[in-house]
Amino acid sequence: MSLEAGDRQGKPGALPASAAAGSGANAQWGGRFAGGPSAIMQEINASIGFDRALWRQDIRASLAHAAMLARTGIIEAADEQAIRAGLEQIAGEIEAGRFEFDAALEDIHMNIEARLSERIGEAGLRLHTARSRNDQVATDFRLWVRDAIDGLDAQAAALMLSLSRRALQHAADPMPGFTHLQTAQPVTFGHHLLAYVEMLARDRGRLADTGRRLNQCPLGSAALAGTSFPIDRRMTASALGFDRPCGNSLDAVSDRDFALEYLSSLAIMAMHLSRLAEEIVTWCSSPFGFIRLSDAFTTGSSIMPQKRNPDAAELIRAKTGRITGALVGLLTVMKGLPLAYAKDMQEDKEPVFQATGSASLSLAAMDGMVRDLVAETGRMNALAGSGYATATDLADWLVRVLKLPFRTAHHVTGRLVGRAEARGVDLAGLSLAEMQAEEPGITGDVFSVLTVAASVASRTSEGGTAPGNVRRAAQGWIAQLSGDAQPGDGA
Amino acid sequence: MSLEAGDRQGKPGALPASAAAGSGANAQWGGRFAGGPSAIMQEINASIGFDRALWRQDIRASLAHAAMLARTGIIEAADEQAIRAGLEQIAGEIEAGRFEFDAALEDIHMNIEARLSERIGEAGLRLHTARSRNDQVATDFRLWVRDAIDGLDAQAAALMLSLSRRALQHAADPMPGFTHLQTAQPVTFGHHLLAYVEMLARDRGRLADTGRRLNQCPLGSAALAGTSFPIDRRMTASALGFDRPCGNSLDAVSDRDFALEYLSSLAIMAMHLSRLAEEIVTWCSSPFGFIRLSDAFTTGSSIMPQKRNPDAAELIRAKTGRITGALVGLLTVMKGLPLAYAKDMQEDKEPVFQATGSASLSLAAMDGMVRDLVAETGRMNALAGSGYATATDLADWLVRVLKLPFRTAHHVTGRLVGRAEARGVDLAGLSLAEMQAEEPGITGDVFSVLTVAASVASRTSEGGTAPGNVRRAAQGWIAQLSGDAQPGDGA
Amino acid sequence: MSLEAGDRQGKPGALPASAAAGSGANAQWGGRFAGGPSAIMQEINASIGFDRALWRQDIRASLAHAAMLARTGIIEAADEQAIRAGLEQIAGEIEAGRFEFDAALEDIHMNIEARLSERIGEAGLRLHTARSRNDQVATDFRLWVRDAIDGLDAQAAALMLSLSRRALQHAADPMPGFTHLQTAQPVTFGHHLLAYVEMLARDRGRLADTGRRLNQCPLGSAALAGTSFPIDRRMTASALGFDRPCGNSLDAVSDRDFALEYLSSLAIMAMHLSRLAEEIVTWCSSPFGFIRLSDAFTTGSSIMPQKRNPDAAELIRAKTGRITGALVGLLTVMKGLPLAYAKDMQEDKEPVFQATGSASLSLAAMDGMVRDLVAETGRMNALAGSGYATATDLADWLVRVLKLPFRTAHHVTGRLVGRAEARGVDLAGLSLAEMQAEEPGITGDVFSVLTVAASVASRTSEGGTAPGNVRRAAQGWIAQLSGDAQPGDGA
Amino acid sequence: MSLEAGDRQGKPGALPASAAAGSGANAQWGGRFAGGPSAIMQEINASIGFDRALWRQDIRASLAHAAMLARTGIIEAADEQAIRAGLEQIAGEIEAGRFEFDAALEDIHMNIEARLSERIGEAGLRLHTARSRNDQVATDFRLWVRDAIDGLDAQAAALMLSLSRRALQHAADPMPGFTHLQTAQPVTFGHHLLAYVEMLARDRGRLADTGRRLNQCPLGSAALAGTSFPIDRRMTASALGFDRPCGNSLDAVSDRDFALEYLSSLAIMAMHLSRLAEEIVTWCSSPFGFIRLSDAFTTGSSIMPQKRNPDAAELIRAKTGRITGALVGLLTVMKGLPLAYAKDMQEDKEPVFQATGSASLSLAAMDGMVRDLVAETGRMNALAGSGYATATDLADWLVRVLKLPFRTAHHVTGRLVGRAEARGVDLAGLSLAEMQAEEPGITGDVFSVLTVAASVASRTSEGGTAPGNVRRAAQGWIAQLSGDAQPGDGA
Repeated sequence: MSLEAGDRQGKPGALPASAAAGSGANAQWGGRFAGGPSAIMQEINASIGFDRALWRQDIRASLAHAAMLARTGIIEAADEQAIRAGLEQIAGEIEAGRFEFDAALEDIHMNIEARLSERIGEAGLRLHTARSRNDQVATDFRLWVRDAIDGLDAQAAALMLSLSRRALQHAADPMPGFTHLQTAQPVTFGHHLLAYVEMLARDRGRLADTGRRLNQCPLGSAALAGTSFPIDRRMTASALGFDRPCGNSLDAVSDRDFALEYLSSLAIMAMHLSRLAEEIVTWCSSPFGFIRLSDAFTTGSSIMPQKRNPDAAELIRAKTGRITGALVGLLTVMKGLPLAYAKDMQEDKEPVFQATGSASLSLAAMDGMVRDLVAETGRMNALAGSGYATATDLADWLVRVLKLPFRTAHHVTGRLVGRAEARGVDLAGLSLAEMQAEEPGITGDVFSVLTVAASVASRTSEGGTAPGNVRRAAQGWIAQLSGDAQPGDGA
Repeated sequence: MSLEAGDRQGKPGALPASAAAGSGANAQWGGRFAGGPSAIMQEINASIGFDRALWRQDIRASLAHAAMLARTGIIEAADEQAIRAGLEQIAGEIEAGRFEFDAALEDIHMNIEARLSERIGEAGLRLHTARSRNDQVATDFRLWVRDAIDGLDAQAAALMLSLSRRALQHAADPMPGFTHLQTAQPVTFGHHLLAYVEMLARDRGRLADTGRRLNQCPLGSAALAGTSFPIDRRMTASALGFDRPCGNSLDAVSDRDFALEYLSSLAIMAMHLSRLAEEIVTWCSSPFGFIRLSDAFTTGSSIMPQKRNPDAAELIRAKTGRITGALVGLLTVMKGLPLAYAKDMQEDKEPVFQATGSASLSLAAMDGMVRDLVAETGRMNALAGSGYATATDLADWLVRVLKLPFRTAHHVTGRLVGRAEARGVDLAGLSLAEMQAEEPGITGDVFSVLTVAASVASRTSEGGTAPGNVRRAAQGWIAQLSGDAQPGDGA
Repeated sequence: MSLEAGDRQGKPGALPASAAAGSGANAQWGGRFAGGPSAIMQEINASIGFDRALWRQDIRASLAHAAMLARTGIIEAADEQAIRAGLEQIAGEIEAGRFEFDAALEDIHMNIEARLSERIGEAGLRLHTARSRNDQVATDFRLWVRDAIDGLDAQAAALMLSLSRRALQHAADPMPGFTHLQTAQPVTFGHHLLAYVEMLARDRGRLADTGRRLNQCPLGSAALAGTSFPIDRRMTASALGFDRPCGNSLDAVSDRDFALEYLSSLAIMAMHLSRLAEEIVTWCSSPFGFIRLSDAFTTGSSIMPQKRNPDAAELIRAKTGRITGALVGLLTVMKGLPLAYAKDMQEDKEPVFQATGSASLSLAAMDGMVRDLVAETGRMNALAGSGYATATDLADWLVRVLKLPFRTAHHVTGRLVGRAEARGVDLAGLSLAEMQAEEPGITGDVFSVLTVAASVASRTSEGGTAPGNVRRAAQGWIAQLSGDAQPGDGA
Repeated sequence: MSLEAGDRQGKPGALPASAAAGSGANAQWGGRFAGGPSAIMQEINASIGFDRALWRQDIRASLAHAAMLARTGIIEAADEQAIRAGLEQIAGEIEAGRFEFDAALEDIHMNIEARLSERIGEAGLRLHTARSRNDQVATDFRLWVRDAIDGLDAQAAALMLSLSRRALQHAADPMPGFTHLQTAQPVTFGHHLLAYVEMLARDRGRLADTGRRLNQCPLGSAALAGTSFPIDRRMTASALGFDRPCGNSLDAVSDRDFALEYLSSLAIMAMHLSRLAEEIVTWCSSPFGFIRLSDAFTTGSSIMPQKRNPDAAELIRAKTGRITGALVGLLTVMKGLPLAYAKDMQEDKEPVFQATGSASLSLAAMDGMVRDLVAETGRMNALAGSGYATATDLADWLVRVLKLPFRTAHHVTGRLVGRAEARGVDLAGLSLAEMQAEEPGITGDVFSVLTVAASVASRTSEGGTAPGNVRRAAQGWIAQLSGDAQPGDGA
């Protein structure tokens, strides 16, 4: 049968299409469930519309389970061989798009098992010995999330590499450093880009911790209590690349921490990307004009022919909402659920699938933009020195050379900025005499710290914006990442 | 071309399927974007994968727009006739599943417009006069949400009707009324069900307010500034059933309040359904045993043949997560967006579509369960009197008959409960002498208020649980709802 | 006794202060609960630390309840007089800060009732007849939210008035209209400000609907089942300004929809304010330079003396998080709660109190900034014409005058923008010959639509940006709002 | 001056108290800001109302900073001595409650620095050399969160210990194991409790990872760009117990990942506690009657004298909302913030403080309940065998002994359950002949697996519910935890 019932779940159009049909709207609306209770039940209950995404993981886990059953003598070796051959054929069918999913069989697990028995007969009926759908789905889903972590990790590494390369290129190009979006002190564009490399490094750390913590195998927990069959859980755990079996069977089938921790990590990563996306949108705006994106990463307007809209950046910024929403959704689902498995937990997969898709797409698009963007270094440099951006350098000079207490130097500088503002000049536009009127000890040497170049060059403290620092940091990241990043990306 | 790119967005499997492929995983993962920037950009940018759900609304709005353009002389009558004929043919094609959606055309609006020009030539190129995608999509989406409100309103009314009918049937059947899930006072099962009718009535009120507030038409706001063409916005607004045009063109294209307010209303409704779902799960649990669901609304276990699991109730409870997540997601998207339209706002539709699907399915499944459930009135009645549930009746008797101050009566009752507990009997199991030992004024008349039947019968205050009250309330709802509920449902 | 236990709940410092104390940290940490179970129970259970905010509402509701009890003969008139006098004295004590709150009495309700009995003796013990804390707290909290709605409504009206006045002032001052933060078409600054007036008008509409829907009185529902006393719920409802009693006693004590709907309305309003706040931050940034804020609404830097940071705008933008968080928190609390009252619902108040405080402060600070800001109209005007902002006007001219189909005109305009870009001039910088090279029909008349002034003047469609439209709209709002806004504000 | 302004922020009562005052309400409401812009600005801007919680951390960091400044020659040794003495005196004043916090000085950092200069003169003005409030607050807040993690970790360990001890005590006491809240298979109460030990162990793992990842020191990043002073960041990092300085100064002042990751960890932990809380509420409910809580952890009713409400469990369940809300709030705040520091980030602290308080209280109260509860083992045991809970054992017997394929055994068992249901007996109530009617191979031996005791004893697979397993696991946890748990708790 077709997947239509499953497909309609949460799909656009299914509902308002009929509600929209005019005077007969409600009748049509109601028509969805004209099939009566069983139609409603199948539609709300069947998960095959989305959990077929787990097919690879389900087959992998079944192969490991069958091998263990045979090794421990619970089933015959011949049965295991039949099962293995059958599952491999089914994998081929699904891969080739020839497998007929059936919503009446509810989920991917029953679809595959039913097809197996259809193909190989009685041996197929033995596969489910000593396991339950509860531990089976928990195992499959962990494997899926573990795979997703690997994929996103490589994408994040690729983005870090692209950022680091651009940072190296712009290690000495000044831009205005902002706090409160007000010009604060000059920084280099490379330094700014490396801030995102730090964020992504933490994101990868979180994903790695999540992957390490999830790497225990639920298989063999059965429905909730374990089993009386003499299974070997270490064998299946090891075959599936898990560090060990989960320690408590009730917990193993009730636990979705791995999905929540994964979504938390994605939500924080998405937040990071939203910050860079916001900056890209702002930098592309003509009053800023800090960067340009090529046609490959902008779109036009249906009514305003001159527009080059940074749509990809805006969409990345917006994907944060989807991912945060997925996290909130699953926290809500799990709140207050009694042990052990409850069907509520079936609502764990779609948010995870969608958040993964959003995160992967965001990383790819951001990587593309980072490699694509052209920095308008002249424009950035020009603005870097405006707005009294080197006032801190003046204050620091007063402390360092004249030994003023910092707070006193701060106040002197404030008065000098006031004078310059009143005269409509920059700090370097004040005469020495004007400076001395506020602080007699000031000498002509002070002017040497008031340039943008001098300012950024002086910030040599560890982690500071001095070009040498930035260059070293970028080179360090590049060396470290060249191994991790996904081939083809970041190249 | 196919919809694959759009389809892959956020879909299960697309990502980890390849990440899962073993040693070559990362290369394959990266392979998604092997097409380079344009492939990434198309995948993140195109919305046709989900916004084709708006096709009916888009055609409806274009028909109204073209009619107005002709009436005001902006286009020729002949052009309008060609446009109308063309759009109607396209509607037929989509309805019949023969329309070829093209992700390269990004969205439903461009897909339809491009097809129109293909069919009718130059007249098709005139349709977009004096409008922009910004006002077009805002109009289409409002129409969609308005239609969805109508559909959900009818479903909610149907559920209210089913609840009211069950309430009438059980207007006099006592059950334990709980607070803190501790037996508090007897109530009737009908009274309990009517509490949910009140909640749903508020839900419908919120949906109606949302529908009323959204009923202003953005069309004619153009990109953001309005237009210089002599359009008649009142004409299109009226043709599309809106109360009037939106008052400010910048706001009209930037506003998604209607979607947020709609999602808020759904989130509160989903919370209501989660409460009833939780109760159904608890009531079905064997220690409670208050109700039974038929096979139509339960599922079995893959390993425990005796199970009858209330899956539909659990899934309804869980859908709350999806809907709350959708609300949070869109609030996150809209936070801090500068005016006017930003591409971020494209992330408004999928959460709304999915939340609508979840809400509709939850209402349908809940309606099915409410009609399906069998109340174990004997079991409920037996438990209604246990746990000193009529202690309040005793306290009230002391106030009413002996004129004790309430607080004093409360303390006397507490001591009598203590005595009964110590003796292992119910309150009615105490002798008159034992009662008088605590409060000499007590007479044999007190025993008349200690039965479950007397207790519920006495709660005649407005909105109280007395069977007469419940019957009247249920009948009132049934009379009121019979017109609103969706034909076929609740029948 | 002091409120320390209650105060420590969720308060900064209480926990890490001790955890921070070094080697003995954990012992000290544990020390909080050294008092044993009763100390823990009191700390988690007592709500007096925050619910004393309800004292006015609690006394108001008790006065109405007592009056009804006397009128219906349930208590004596003399008792009611004693109660009234006692409650009024207590109100005076609290108002004057002389009332001693006692955490051992858990909440505001018991604190007041205990004090009442202390003052007036037995009559005080009769006050709680025919009610329960469940209906009492539901009534008090509704009254509080209703009051808060009134206050926020007046503040929102004041902000609308301030915005409308600034809009009238700048009805004809052009600025670049942005979509995607890219220059799109010129609009007027007044028109932009009025977009927020529309948003706030919807916010007020939502608050009003919330207030109307909550305006049913729970009092008399007692614990959950109603009461056997011959109370008159219409009398208390009317005395407290409610439209009518709640219809179902179980629902009345279990319902927190009013708080959720209120928080939803605040979350949407906060999102609106976050958008204006984002714009203020951007407009203050030196590359934009669209507005200036005075020292009254900016702060300095501890290290950079020249900074004028728009802190208030940033904080308003951030308050969105608090308010959205409060909404999510309460939705989470209510999810899956069985009827009737559960103690979980005590977690309803702090989020509502904090969100109200955040919203009120945000409205006040935004109103201050709107009145304070100085628009740099020269800067805005200069940028309004850059970036080919009048390209749409050119396209529209081609349609209107040359009768080109819109799509064709769009493409011609795109080519003309391309030529101008290549030459580094604006559209008006192209010669007529250059224009005719793309479209021979173009005449010199076209230059008349390419100025900013002509562009905004031409957008006369309803809701469009033409100065006359903006002026009329601003005047309309001012006339309408002058009655609603809170005296003193917006003046 | 007093803290009133700061105190009013987000506090209950401040707003509706005045709004509630009747006809003059709005004037009073407005009265809050009668002081004009400066009053509003101070109220929204000042953080001293909550960030004084950081006083210990602020002083600790300043001591380390001053020592480094002296060691590197940036200030004189004598200045450092004066600063140290001054800060220690201030610490004493705050500890003793004698420090006068001043909202005009905005935050804890300026309050302390101002007081320092007041006490020690010019040396105090030198403390802020080479740092900024941006790196200062980031450092203080990391220290606070690190301390909080230590405290919560010890509390979680204590709860794990209490659970493990109760698990050991009840290692062999059967209870019904539920899935979907339907009786599934017998488990032991000890096994059930140990599931929560596993959850808490993961919670501690997450907290530890968060603590490890946050353990980099922002100090020395200055405002955003680093500094030109020859500071030694490794010296301050080491003095404060950090692993190393943060790698990028822009990131260091803009990063709140540590707070978000911490809140994520708390949200997942709170979810775990909500599940146990839900179970406690259900188990205390009379239809279940699985456990009893003493008066120390229950409360009474104002109207129903017999009630013993599990309020602490309900409040723990509800605290999940607060903590999830805090996480969502901060994710919302951080979304889309451009680098570097923005004032929005001041909204990071209150959610973290409140979530910490809620988590700490929840752990303490849960620990109290776990130690307090009395298991009604007789009641649990009786229910453990009802509902055909050993049907799986029968199916497994058919597989193991008769070599039926599992699916076939499953179906045979289903038919036998159907027979038993029809006859109103348990499985063991069927005669051998009845069994053989479905499956002729069945022998009398089958009855030996149908008892609860046999069922739990047979689940010896790793992690399964067999008493020997549970005992070993509990003993293992107890041994491991005895060192970690906080002295006094869990004892």
